[in-house]
Amino acid sequence: MVSVAIMGHGVVGSGVAEILLTHKQKLFASLGEEIYIKKILDLREFPDSPIADRFTKDFEEIINDLEIRVVVEVMGGLNPAYDYVKRCLKAGKSVATSNKELVAAHGAELLAIAKEENVNFMFEASVGGGIPIIRPMNQCLVANNVGEVAGILNGTTNFILTKMIEDGMQFADALKLAQDLGFAERNPAADIEGHDACRKICILASLAYGRHVYPDSVHTEGITDITLNDVKLAKEFGYVIKLIGKVKKLSDGSLDILTAPMLVPLNSQLSSIDYEFNGIMVRGDCTGDVVFYGKGAGKLPTASAVVADIVDCCKHLKARRFLFWADGDGSNIIDYKDSVSAMYLRVSGDDAEAKAQKLFGEISTVRSGGELAVITPEIRYGDCQSKCAELRDSGVNVLSVIRIGDI
Amino acid sequence: MVSVAIMGHGVVGSGVAEILLTHKQKLFASLGEEIYIKKILDLREFPDSPIADRFTKDFEEIINDLEIRVVVEVMGGLNPAYDYVKRCLKAGKSVATSNKELVAAHGAELLAIAKEENVNFMFEASVGGGIPIIRPMNQCLVANNVGEVAGILNGTTNFILTKMIEDGMQFADALKLAQDLGFAERNPAADIEGHDACRKICILASLAYGRHVYPDSVHTEGITDITLNDVKLAKEFGYVIKLIGKVKKLSDGSLDILTAPMLVPLNSQLSSIDYEFNGIMVRGDCTGDVVFYGKGAGKLPTASAVVADIVDCCKHLKARRFLFWADGDGSNIIDYKDSVSAMYLRVSGDDAEAKAQKLFGEISTVRSGGELAVITPEIRYGDCQSKCAELRDSGVNVLSVIRIGDI
Repeated sequence: MVSVAIMGHGVVGSGVAEILLTHKQKLFASLGEEIYIKKILDLREFPDSPIADRFTKDFEEIINDLEIRVVVEVMGGLNPAYDYVKRCLKAGKSVATSNKELVAAHGAELLAIAKEENVNFMFEASVGGGIPIIRPMNQCLVANNVGEVAGILNGTTNFILTKMIEDGMQFADALKLAQDLGFAERNPAADIEGHDACRKICILASLAYGRHVYPDSVHTEGITDITLNDVKLAKEFGYVIKLIGKVKKLSDGSLDILTAPMLVPLNSQLSSIDYEFNGIMVRGDCTGDVVFYGKGAGKLPTASAVVADIVDCCKHLKARRFLFWADGDGSNIIDYKDSVSAMYLRVSGDDAEAKAQKLFGEISTVRSGGELAVITPEIRYGDCQSKCAELRDSGVNVLSVIRIGDI
Repeated sequence: MVSVAIMGHGVVGSGVAEILLTHKQKLFASLGEEIYIKKILDLREFPDSPIADRFTKDFEEIINDLEIRVVVEVMGGLNPAYDYVKRCLKAGKSVATSNKELVAAHGAELLAIAKEENVNFMFEASVGGGIPIIRPMNQCLVANNVGEVAGILNGTTNFILTKMIEDGMQFADALKLAQDLGFAERNPAADIEGHDACRKICILASLAYGRHVYPDSVHTEGITDITLNDVKLAKEFGYVIKLIGKVKKLSDGSLDILTAPMLVPLNSQLSSIDYEFNGIMVRGDCTGDVVFYGKGAGKLPTASAVVADIVDCCKHLKARRFLFWADGDGSNIIDYKDSVSAMYLRVSGDDAEAKAQKLFGEISTVRSGGELAVITPEIRYGDCQSKCAELRDSGVNVLSVIRIGDI
């Protein structure tokens, strides 16, 4: 029997407890012994829980219990999660977490402590919810140099964009629907402004390239400026608009990483990932493109990924699993203005097409009402900004500027 | 340093050697020590290999070398692979193989020997080539009861079907093109008659449900009877035809498993998996549908999966990885005639529609030339066969009978 504690009894935490209780037999068959929930930490009371007697409001009861070998952190946020996780690891307990904010902010430090203490720090659920991605990247793709990782990493924004694409809904209406259906928080900023997706691509980039990438070194744009016109015009060119987190290793070893809406070509596997689903493409030098698809959030999908980590921690109480990356200082990340891609512009005004052609060279265009959509050749983002400024100076309205994703 | 031997220097074997040499640094970083190819077994000579001096034609040189802790079996076929692998495991060496025929025929026995000898028997590359699937199913989805696994598991047939669907090519022409491009063997029987896909769904079913499923207990149909008419009519109904390996756990615990061409609805993630690519859908009770996509064959994709297993074997020279299923006797598998699905029929003859409606009840139909395509309600396969016989007796030509995949 391995005793575990669960810190947090919200959506994911209650799901973890539920799976540990309802899937007891299957987990026993895999592990060869029972996983026993000894403590659940939450400030609230849950008198109706079948294990109501094991709840505590006092973290010290967990940290000081030598029988508890594995601690699950599903509280979310940085405080007190960061402090608690650090103390658990230092006390020789393995930790499994679904907390992407924590991993993106402190992953390198926590992995280093885990290594020093010869325990495990695992976070399969922090990216892609129930989709296996951390372990496949770390283990199955170990024989690959990863050229690129790109993904639809946030289900809320993907739901909103899909509703705009499929049903012609306005952004605000689609956001409200997502909130009503429970896909979006009342305060949706972290999702729609891209910060949630950014944290996830940071975790994947750190894992793929071995040095921590912190969110504040990654250029991030959300989807709040995407209009129905953009959606329609993108379709005419053969693209769908998706919020993409993307990291690419350049030939000099530096990383081109960003989170932004992109036009994804219809022949990309990512283009058909719709609604609240997530999809992650990993481009290996041996495997080629591998894509992982599934529900990126939700109580049981996320909880089942946490439970997989718990089982792995329980199997490796003595032998450490080889999951590690070093700290990073951002020096290997290029300025987002130096990133190169083809661009989509939506413009209006007299002679917009001729002016765009003069500035950008060989462009493709589609007209819709008084507006013109333009796809430019590949261009440095900073140069695109300058040319857009020139366009504006020449009397052209530049209404949208969105990258074309080569994914 | 861990010494390994590679048995077989064909397409996959030479790829394994290549990756171990070219990705030395990355592998060292993951494992913490060097993987050294001590011996390569092949009856042919490879004087131009950079490690030509390490080739041997004598298996005894491998089995008797106590330094060799991990043996890679990439010879293919059952003999002598089965005997060699068994002897390696019994000699205390871990084995990594890409040989689906071997795993489908003898997996349970070899896993039992590995367990007894406290070594590892791994076969990530046996299903889905470079796509991580064995490890994710075994580890990441451990907290799920798997309701169903369905996949496009054979790249050759998927290439042929895609060429028929996209370019209107005849089956024979598409097969020839696949052969010319190296996707299909000169003797393509194992692919086009479904046996290769069958072996793979047997491996996934054994893994998902813990008891070995042998290929001879699985009903298997190939794609040789699929015509361009079927492809076109399927499209009119909103389906594409794919060769699917599929296993579903029924409510009484028995397994409904088969390999056959199926009509896959366009909103299924499997419908957009084209050409030589593979895709596998795993339906977990917690995660929902998770889909894995990538190249299901080829030198480097397959070899990179084998190398991932080598690394895992090297990391676990003492501790066994928990990969296991028991032997099976087929008693948990239902007769394919008892399997239930909606059916697609292509028929011709006087009053075919009225006669089909009378026999099958509420049908959907599409006409094309003198032929009629019918989709029936859900029906037991055996009953469908009887009704088709009745149709024939009444003067209707039944030209095609294909299952509708609920995937």
